[in-house]
Amino acid sequence: MAVSPLAPASFPSLPPIAGVRLAGHRAGIRYKTPRNDVMVAVLDEGSSVAAVLTRSLTASAPIHRCRAHLAGGSVRALVVNAGNSNAFTGKAGEAFVDATIDATVALLGCKPTEVFPASTGVIGQPMPADLIAKSLPEAFTKLVPAEGEAWEVGARAIMTTDTFPKGASATATIDGVTVTVAGFAKGSGMIAPDMATMLAYVFTDANIAHAPLQAVLSSATDRSFNSITVDGDTSTSDTLVLCATRKAGHAAIEGTDDPRLAAFAKAVDAVCLDLAQQIVRDGEGATKFVEIRVTGADSDAAAKRIALTVANSPLVKTAVAGEDANWGRIVAAVGRSGERADRDLLVISVGGVQICANGMEVPGYDEAPVAAHMKGQEILMEVDIGLGTGTATVWTCDLTHGYIDINGSYRS
Amino acid sequence: MAVSPLAPASFPSLPPIAGVRLAGHRAGIRYKTPRNDVMVAVLDEGSSVAAVLTRSLTASAPIHRCRAHLAGGSVRALVVNAGNSNAFTGKAGEAFVDATIDATVALLGCKPTEVFPASTGVIGQPMPADLIAKSLPEAFTKLVPAEGEAWEVGARAIMTTDTFPKGASATATIDGVTVTVAGFAKGSGMIAPDMATMLAYVFTDANIAHAPLQAVLSSATDRSFNSITVDGDTSTSDTLVLCATRKAGHAAIEGTDDPRLAAFAKAVDAVCLDLAQQIVRDGEGATKFVEIRVTGADSDAAAKRIALTVANSPLVKTAVAGEDANWGRIVAAVGRSGERADRDLLVISVGGVQICANGMEVPGYDEAPVAAHMKGQEILMEVDIGLGTGTATVWTCDLTHGYIDINGSYRS
Repeated sequence: MAVSPLAPASFPSLPPIAGVRLAGHRAGIRYKTPRNDVMVAVLDEGSSVAAVLTRSLTASAPIHRCRAHLAGGSVRALVVNAGNSNAFTGKAGEAFVDATIDATVALLGCKPTEVFPASTGVIGQPMPADLIAKSLPEAFTKLVPAEGEAWEVGARAIMTTDTFPKGASATATIDGVTVTVAGFAKGSGMIAPDMATMLAYVFTDANIAHAPLQAVLSSATDRSFNSITVDGDTSTSDTLVLCATRKAGHAAIEGTDDPRLAAFAKAVDAVCLDLAQQIVRDGEGATKFVEIRVTGADSDAAAKRIALTVANSPLVKTAVAGEDANWGRIVAAVGRSGERADRDLLVISVGGVQICANGMEVPGYDEAPVAAHMKGQEILMEVDIGLGTGTATVWTCDLTHGYIDINGSYRS
Repeated sequence: MAVSPLAPASFPSLPPIAGVRLAGHRAGIRYKTPRNDVMVAVLDEGSSVAAVLTRSLTASAPIHRCRAHLAGGSVRALVVNAGNSNAFTGKAGEAFVDATIDATVALLGCKPTEVFPASTGVIGQPMPADLIAKSLPEAFTKLVPAEGEAWEVGARAIMTTDTFPKGASATATIDGVTVTVAGFAKGSGMIAPDMATMLAYVFTDANIAHAPLQAVLSSATDRSFNSITVDGDTSTSDTLVLCATRKAGHAAIEGTDDPRLAAFAKAVDAVCLDLAQQIVRDGEGATKFVEIRVTGADSDAAAKRIALTVANSPLVKTAVAGEDANWGRIVAAVGRSGERADRDLLVISVGGVQICANGMEVPGYDEAPVAAHMKGQEILMEVDIGLGTGTATVWTCDLTHGYIDINGSYRS
């Protein structure tokens, strides 16, 4: 699989995070080419955790376990495999999760609720219960501090149909102390149950307890991972975890209303947004990265629904692939979003050029600069609803023959 | 454009409907090849009307006019053009509708509210106000009784990206009198604002007043035109009109609770379903016709939402194109539908063969007969939710390179 034309030049250089160790390992789950298919992250004692998990009602066995463990608020290990999602695998799926957690507990001496498993890959194919468990002793020997190349090893171990590994980092200042946020993600379709889903693991040394950590992560998710779409499909395994080792030297943040959270939240927002946008840039078959900004809606929620309706429209996405500033398709998507809109108040711009307003094409509209914009890799669509103050921005990619090639070929 | 491989062998032979005259005419709106682009239907005095119009909030000028006229309950003329949807054309669009209605009124001596206009084609390109109006005197000279080839002439005049004309008919008995229902439709994407939308015109000689006619049509729409999807997009111009000339010899049906409506409703259901399925069979790029039956949901509405989520999933649709019975993608779509589902109660069958149940693949599942079914043109997917008694059936087609070719090419 060729690397996406929208990929960054290289994996970024990510800073160390004290109290985090990472390993990539090959358990031999599915891949015939020699590559790691298990990622282990071990956190020092006292680490707190937050997570956002798929809302799918047919979620995988690991998702159910993570949801239960999250209530404890504490984390010692993440154990993630690629190649098999362990979704829709019945009791065998539960047994696999049990065995993986038991093996981790035996190695670390932690509580079972401090282990957060995840699986990504094909749906509905039960694995031997001990497939990862038996490989964990060797995997643990490979654990190294989260710094330098260790990040990319972790990022690569969880890849499936991804064409490039995805990493991001940011820093913030709390009480004069610099704290770091860094992590990695995988995903290339919102879901392609054969070999894809969205997983993201973010780490920080900030001294923040579970509840405020969760508040920050949930908020960041709305504006990042929940504001992207490749094909509108939601995985049975989508998982985002934020672990805080609490090693930084500032006084602990225990409450969700602590004003010191603001700067930290900004850093988490930045990392989540960067990772989310990289997932779009690796969208299956993507050749264009599309930003859709909606303003003037009745509410932020209305704006987001409108923006996602435009972003998920196959007609808008194929028009982008065809480098056609087909604003009629944008109008149609706005109209069917279910949110209030008035034809005569809508203003639509592409590439910063106003195309229509007052219920019709702008008189004297010159398509030339817009056509030039559509030939680029970064497309901007702006829709002003003209009714209120609600705003939202979402990101998507075009719908191309490449998407059909990847998803229309048989599983083998 | 090659005729869809899913097209019927030929346009059906449709029976006459007393009191209906049809004409096809060329006004020269857009097409360079010599073809009709205007369809006129004239109904005898005393005809009643029902209609279902797009719920799009950016609906076209003709839609707004039809919605206003519907309150009158009476119809004398339908005037429909292909090539330009007159959507998002501002005041010019209103002027075009005014001129078209005025010209029709002058020719027929009817009320303005008895004229139902519609337009399909490119969005956002204002037409000269009199483009159709000036051609109507000549078009009216071509009016012939609705019988024989007149039906196909009408059906062809409203085609845009359609690869074949779509007609259907049925009969019913009211008080021992046979009444006829016949009509035609166009559409190949739910919307492709360049040159597509869904229009359907159905006629009957039954003696039924506006209110009961509307009740029958609205109900039929739920199980036909609102149970199909090609790409999940809704047109700004979708229009379905049912005209009753009331020429049949039975006593008039004036109320919505008249028991004699049942047989008539069945005929309207049949015609609407036939036309709707033909639209799916002409879905842009379609190579497979897919029926999705959902049972055991909390309610019929829940079942329909689940069925449409499966039908609109690009991953399910590309799997069908790839002849892959990828039930993992069906599970994922059910899970994200927003309706209640329980992984361990789901039963999924393809081609009549049960594939998964009890939260996992059926033990000993033999893929061979399912793989053979997937190679055919008619695909059946059944999902039993196992929770309640709600059922729904929807129809869709696969998502192929052909769809990208049609919609990803520039407008010119």
